[in-house]
Amino acid sequence: MLRVAVVFVALICFSPSAMADPLPSWHAGEAKQRIIGFVESVSDPSDANFVPADQRIAVFDNDGTLWAEQPLYFQLVFAIERVGALAQEDPSILTTDVLRAAAAGDVEGVMAGGKEGVLEVVDASHSGLSVEAFQSEVAAWLDASVHPETGRRYDAMVYQPMLELLSYLRDSGFRTYIVSGGGVDFMRVFAERVYGIPPEQVIGSMGNLSYQVVDGVPTIMKEPGVHFIDDKDAKPIGIARDIGRRPILVAGNSDGDFEMLEWATSADGPRLGMIVHHTDAEREWAYDRDSHIGRLERGLDEGPDRGWLIVDMAGDWKTVFPEQP
Amino acid sequence: MLRVAVVFVALICFSPSAMADPLPSWHAGEAKQRIIGFVESVSDPSDANFVPADQRIAVFDNDGTLWAEQPLYFQLVFAIERVGALAQEDPSILTTDVLRAAAAGDVEGVMAGGKEGVLEVVDASHSGLSVEAFQSEVAAWLDASVHPETGRRYDAMVYQPMLELLSYLRDSGFRTYIVSGGGVDFMRVFAERVYGIPPEQVIGSMGNLSYQVVDGVPTIMKEPGVHFIDDKDAKPIGIARDIGRRPILVAGNSDGDFEMLEWATSADGPRLGMIVHHTDAEREWAYDRDSHIGRLERGLDEGPDRGWLIVDMAGDWKTVFPEQP
Repeated sequence: MLRVAVVFVALICFSPSAMADPLPSWHAGEAKQRIIGFVESVSDPSDANFVPADQRIAVFDNDGTLWAEQPLYFQLVFAIERVGALAQEDPSILTTDVLRAAAAGDVEGVMAGGKEGVLEVVDASHSGLSVEAFQSEVAAWLDASVHPETGRRYDAMVYQPMLELLSYLRDSGFRTYIVSGGGVDFMRVFAERVYGIPPEQVIGSMGNLSYQVVDGVPTIMKEPGVHFIDDKDAKPIGIARDIGRRPILVAGNSDGDFEMLEWATSADGPRLGMIVHHTDAEREWAYDRDSHIGRLERGLDEGPDRGWLIVDMAGDWKTVFPEQP
Repeated sequence: MLRVAVVFVALICFSPSAMADPLPSWHAGEAKQRIIGFVESVSDPSDANFVPADQRIAVFDNDGTLWAEQPLYFQLVFAIERVGALAQEDPSILTTDVLRAAAAGDVEGVMAGGKEGVLEVVDASHSGLSVEAFQSEVAAWLDASVHPETGRRYDAMVYQPMLELLSYLRDSGFRTYIVSGGGVDFMRVFAERVYGIPPEQVIGSMGNLSYQVVDGVPTIMKEPGVHFIDDKDAKPIGIARDIGRRPILVAGNSDGDFEMLEWATSADGPRLGMIVHHTDAEREWAYDRDSHIGRLERGLDEGPDRGWLIVDMAGDWKTVFPEQP
């Protein structure tokens, strides 16, 4: 009977995942070795680099780091398509060239408006309804849409090796966060189901909100205008505001992630900075310095000297996307 | 041996705290009964009101709810004293009447400047240094200061019954948050040590921040100006932004908490709204409708009809402050 009890305790203490390969979709090599070495060392109380669990915080960019971002940020695809749908009900909303381009599905016409044009499309598609109603729209869009090149659902355009990394980190006592230029209300629709990241661990860009009591029902309404754009030097600021601690692991893929990588990895103690380098034109897309989306230049130039791990998508990953259900 | 194993499992499953009185500083009565009834029912999987652990979110106002706020918000005391200290080094910072009043310790002179005057004092005392340096200043101030009427450290002016409630909620699978008009960088200095609330669960007002690389060291600097004032209708907005879920338990003490109480308790499912009513002039302070700080009027008028629990500090609490170490 003692033996039974011991086996019972052993089963509790050594779960199968601790013995199996935690990153089966990563090829054996420097990247996988550095990640596992880092995670094992910071979570081992007998290791000189041990980090208490409450400080084991890992943050991930979303677009291009956890899911694909080509040929266009998926949230922008949603925004453009929603302007089209809204215009069918009420064409009078199309008050500018950019909005008319959006309603016609003319992406180049939208992009011609620059950053302001994109914000016009976001305002038109992301305001005037409650957060809950907006999230229902996003969920319905995800259910109804597929990526034009792969035919996959957008929320199946996620990277299997990164899903494994997120799980491995959580199994090792990390809390995993998203820190993205994408909108929080948009990402929270799928972040928990797809990534295992709960709403309160999603940090991102935010529009204005209002609190209203509509027909006696208290409601948080999405309003036009930007409250916070979570990109570049705003990323460490967003982390400082929301988490109030410096992460020990940061993963990104573009120069929009440079400052949060720089901030997190320059502190004392064990730190891992990681850049997903899109090198795989065969299975995904290959782009870096000259890309209109996810431009990566400074990270490639300075990252290696700063000790950042440059993940080579083509060479380090056995698979890119998860098996389809 | 089987018996040993069973006892072992039993010890794991029924910790002493689940059997002992979880709220020893609360008198037996309706308030204590309603709190315990609510917590037991939402955390019991066999109960019709069971709420899954990830949705068991409780939010607490800070000033007047978790710690005292009379005769003046403690953060404002810090701000005024810091202006005085800074002016000793450099009197040229005293560019306005309000700042000169602050440096002279003239609280009425500061308050005469209204909200704008307070923001002047906050800007002068809460900017121009890194978040870390600011938090060192706050910690040093807490170590060096005592409340003028009680002689206690400010971080010992916390309510013992509320500390017990926070622990009880966490033992019952809740996550506990602060949602306060106070500043996040200020509260995070003591929230974890005093309340057991980690930095990432502190939501509050925020000043502007900048990201700078100073002599090669990436730094988050506190800048003048307000980014977000977490009061009144901004409280549910702050919760929606940071947590992205509606809490099921909300505790406040003033009309600044009305909207977050209203928002949280108007949703379907089990909800507990709670107002700490300052009725105890003997052991703390007695104030509500006419107070210049922590004014409570609408909550008293409408709270009972809305099913909110009005906690009577004098009648419901055996003790107010914790025993001094």
